[in-house]
Amino acid sequence: MRMYELLDKKRLARKLSADDIAYAVQAYTKDEIPDYQMSALLMSIAINGMDNEETAAMTKAMVESGEIADLSAIRGVKVDKHSSGGVGDKTSPVVGAIVAACGVPVAKMSGRSLGFSGGTVDKLESIPGYTIDLPKEKFFEIVNTVGVSIIGQTGNLAPADKKIYGLRDVTATVESTPLIASSIMSKKIAGGADAILLDVKVGSGAFMKDVEKAVQLAKVMVSIGGSFHKETIALITQMDSPLGKNIGTSLEVIEMIAVLQNEEQGELKELCLALAANMLYLAGKERDMETCAALCEQALSSGKAFEKFREMVGAQGGDISVIDDPSLFAQAKYIVPVAAKQSGYIQSFRTERCGMASMVLGAGRETKQSLIDYTAGITLIAKRGDTVQQGQPLAYLHTSDENKIKRAEELFLNAVTIGQEKPQPQPLIYQRITSADL
Amino acid sequence: MRMYELLDKKRLARKLSADDIAYAVQAYTKDEIPDYQMSALLMSIAINGMDNEETAAMTKAMVESGEIADLSAIRGVKVDKHSSGGVGDKTSPVVGAIVAACGVPVAKMSGRSLGFSGGTVDKLESIPGYTIDLPKEKFFEIVNTVGVSIIGQTGNLAPADKKIYGLRDVTATVESTPLIASSIMSKKIAGGADAILLDVKVGSGAFMKDVEKAVQLAKVMVSIGGSFHKETIALITQMDSPLGKNIGTSLEVIEMIAVLQNEEQGELKELCLALAANMLYLAGKERDMETCAALCEQALSSGKAFEKFREMVGAQGGDISVIDDPSLFAQAKYIVPVAAKQSGYIQSFRTERCGMASMVLGAGRETKQSLIDYTAGITLIAKRGDTVQQGQPLAYLHTSDENKIKRAEELFLNAVTIGQEKPQPQPLIYQRITSADL
Repeated sequence: MRMYELLDKKRLARKLSADDIAYAVQAYTKDEIPDYQMSALLMSIAINGMDNEETAAMTKAMVESGEIADLSAIRGVKVDKHSSGGVGDKTSPVVGAIVAACGVPVAKMSGRSLGFSGGTVDKLESIPGYTIDLPKEKFFEIVNTVGVSIIGQTGNLAPADKKIYGLRDVTATVESTPLIASSIMSKKIAGGADAILLDVKVGSGAFMKDVEKAVQLAKVMVSIGGSFHKETIALITQMDSPLGKNIGTSLEVIEMIAVLQNEEQGELKELCLALAANMLYLAGKERDMETCAALCEQALSSGKAFEKFREMVGAQGGDISVIDDPSLFAQAKYIVPVAAKQSGYIQSFRTERCGMASMVLGAGRETKQSLIDYTAGITLIAKRGDTVQQGQPLAYLHTSDENKIKRAEELFLNAVTIGQEKPQPQPLIYQRITSADL
Repeated sequence: MRMYELLDKKRLARKLSADDIAYAVQAYTKDEIPDYQMSALLMSIAINGMDNEETAAMTKAMVESGEIADLSAIRGVKVDKHSSGGVGDKTSPVVGAIVAACGVPVAKMSGRSLGFSGGTVDKLESIPGYTIDLPKEKFFEIVNTVGVSIIGQTGNLAPADKKIYGLRDVTATVESTPLIASSIMSKKIAGGADAILLDVKVGSGAFMKDVEKAVQLAKVMVSIGGSFHKETIALITQMDSPLGKNIGTSLEVIEMIAVLQNEEQGELKELCLALAANMLYLAGKERDMETCAALCEQALSSGKAFEKFREMVGAQGGDISVIDDPSLFAQAKYIVPVAAKQSGYIQSFRTERCGMASMVLGAGRETKQSLIDYTAGITLIAKRGDTVQQGQPLAYLHTSDENKIKRAEELFLNAVTIGQEKPQPQPLIYQRITSADL
C-alpha cells in the first residue's frame, strides 16, 4: 500500500521524502516489493526526475543496504577515483603511482568491466603473477608501505544498487541522471574513501554523448558527495577517440609503462597528470592546483612514479621483469595491419566500435564466462587529426584467433571516418566541477 | 529486446506505432513479456500520454485479444450503453425499457460491480426468480420478442484488458486518460454493438472528479468509437450526490418502478429520458434529438415502457407480482432513521461514503466472496438543497445486521454537509460530446 502511494506521487511528479525512498529501496532489496512495482517507480523517476535531496536519499538508502568499507587502518586521507568508463582508459594505475609518489596513499578497489572492454583489474592481471585477490590486511599493508595498491572489488557494497541496476537494465531506465548518479555514488561512498574524484567521460566511446548532460550528472554527484561530507570533484573529459594508442589488456599495461617512463607524451599522460593533481588537491596535500600539478609532473619525470608502480606490482606478486622490459610480455599469434581505404585526415572515431573490435579479438568478454586473451587488442597508428595514405596501416590488430580478424577489421574500419579537411582540435578536459560550481 | 525499445521510446515521450502496441499487448497476454516491463510501459504511458491514434491501436489490440460478441441474430441497430459508475445509478433497466418501447432493440450485457455498490445485474437479481444467466439463443429471442433483455456479462471479452487492468491497479497507473479510454472502449467494442452511448460521471461519487478531465476522456472515447466505425456519444453527467433517492438493490428496483410508473419526477427520470433519447438517436430511429426526446417521454408517460420492463422481468423468470406491487419486496429487519445533527440546507454529499455506508449495511460486496443482502441499503429523505431540522431524519438505513448500523450511520453523517446558505443548483448533464466535437 505504501509503495502504491509512492508510485502515485512520482507519477504526478511530486517529491518523495527521504523516508519514502529508504522504504522503497529497503523493501525491494528484501524482496518485499515486487519487480513490477519497482520498475514502475524507476520509470516514473526516469521521466519525472528527482531533485538533489531525493537523489542523496536514494544514495544513502543504497549505501545502507550493505557494508561500508573501513579504511581506517590506512594512514592519511584516502581519495577514491572513479571513471565512468571508456575505450583505452588505463589511467588508474598511472594516476595511483603518481599520487603515491607524492606521499598520498592510494587504496583502490576496482571492478571488472561489465561492458566490452576489460576493466583495470583485468589489465593488471595481464602482468604474470599479479594478483587482485588480497586479504584486507595485506591490501592495507601494501598501501601503508608502498603507498599504492589496486585490488578487485570485495565485500557486499551497495547490494541494493546491484539489484536495482539489474532491473533498470531490462526496463530502459538506465538513462536517468539521478539514477546514474545515485548508483555510482552509492558504490563510491560504501567504498569508504574520504574524498572522491570523478572522471566523467563524454563522447562516442562514453555512455554520455553530450557535454551538457555530463556536466549535469557531475553536478548531481558532487552534490551527493557533499551531503555525505566527502569532498568530490569531477572532471568532464573527452572520450570521442580511444584514450591513448593501445586498446587491450597487456597492450594497455605496456602503454602505462611508457607514460611512467616518460616515453609517451600525448593525451594519456596529460589526463593522468590532471587526475593525479586533483587527487592530491582532494587529499589536502596542497590547497592550490598549480602546486599539486607541479608535484605530479615532478613525480612522473623523476621516475619516482614508475618506481611506485614497480613496487606495487612486486608487492602484489607480479613479475617485475616485464615491467622493466615490456618486450617480454607474451605477444599475440597474429598481428595484422588494417589499411586505410582512402587518403585524408582522420575525422572521428566511432569509439564504441573500436572497443567492440578489441573485444572480438579477445581482449574483452562477450559473456560473463568469457576468458580474456591478454595478448589481444588494437594498437592505433593514426589518431584523430593525423593524415593517412590509402593502403597505409591505421592500426594493428592483435589476436590468437585467425577467424576473428575479418570481423574485427570490418568493425574497426567502420569506426574510422577519413575526410579531406583537417578537423578542429578537441579539448581533452572540458570542465572541472567542484562544490563551488553548484 | 523489442519491448526494451518500446520502453525507451515512451520514456522519451515518443509515439508508439500500432505494431508496437499490438506487439506489447499480445506478448503480455501470452506471458511473453514480464510484469515488470509491462508496468514500466504503463507508467511511461500514464506520465507521457498517448495520442488518439495510439489509444485506438491499444483498444484494437485488447479487442483482438479475445472474442467479439456476435449480435447479428438480433434484428435492428444495436446500441450499447456504458456508465462509468456511481452511487444509486439505476438507469440501465429504465432506459432499456423506454428504448425498447420505442421499437429499438436493447441487448445489454452488464457486469457485476467491482467496487462497493452492487451492479445492474445484482439489482435485477433482487427480483425473486430473475435470472441473469441465459444461453445466448434465449437472450437473443427475448430481445427479438420483448425488445429488451439484460443479462450478465458472458464470453471472454478483451482478456488483455483484464490482465493489464490488474497490473495498473497495483502500480498506480489507473489514472490515465488513454488507458481508461482504451480499457472501457475495448470491452464495449468486443461487446458487438453497432453504436455506443457513454455516461461519464463526474463528482464526489465518481472516479472523475472534474468536468474538464471527464470531457477530455469522453472525447478520446468518442474518437476511438469513430476509428472502429461505431458512432459514439458521451453525456458528461453529475455524480456529486447519489442518483435519485434509493441506494441498494431491491430498494433501487423499487425506485426504477416508481419512475416507470410516473410516480417519481426528479433527476433520475430526467437522466433516464436523456440517455434513452440519445440511444434512439444513435440507433437512427430519428435524426433529430427533439423528436427522440418526445418519443421517449411518450413511451414513459403512456406506460409502454413499464410494460416492457414487466415483460422483460417475466421473460427472464422474475416474479411479476413484485413489479406490480413493490410493497411485496422483502423488507429489511431494521429500518432506522439517521437524524440531522443540525438544522440548515444540505450543501453537499461525499457520495463515495454514502456508497460505503450502503455496502456496510449489506447492499454491496466488501470482498469478491461477500453475498449481497437484497433488502439492505439507504433511502434518502433529503437531497442537496433541501432544508432539514436538527433531529429530523435525513435518511433511513435498511439492514438485517443490527451491528452494522452504528458504523453505517457514522459514515453517512460524515458524508453529509449541512450549512446555512442555500447552495447553487447544479446541472444534471454538463455536456454532450459527439464526433462533431472532436
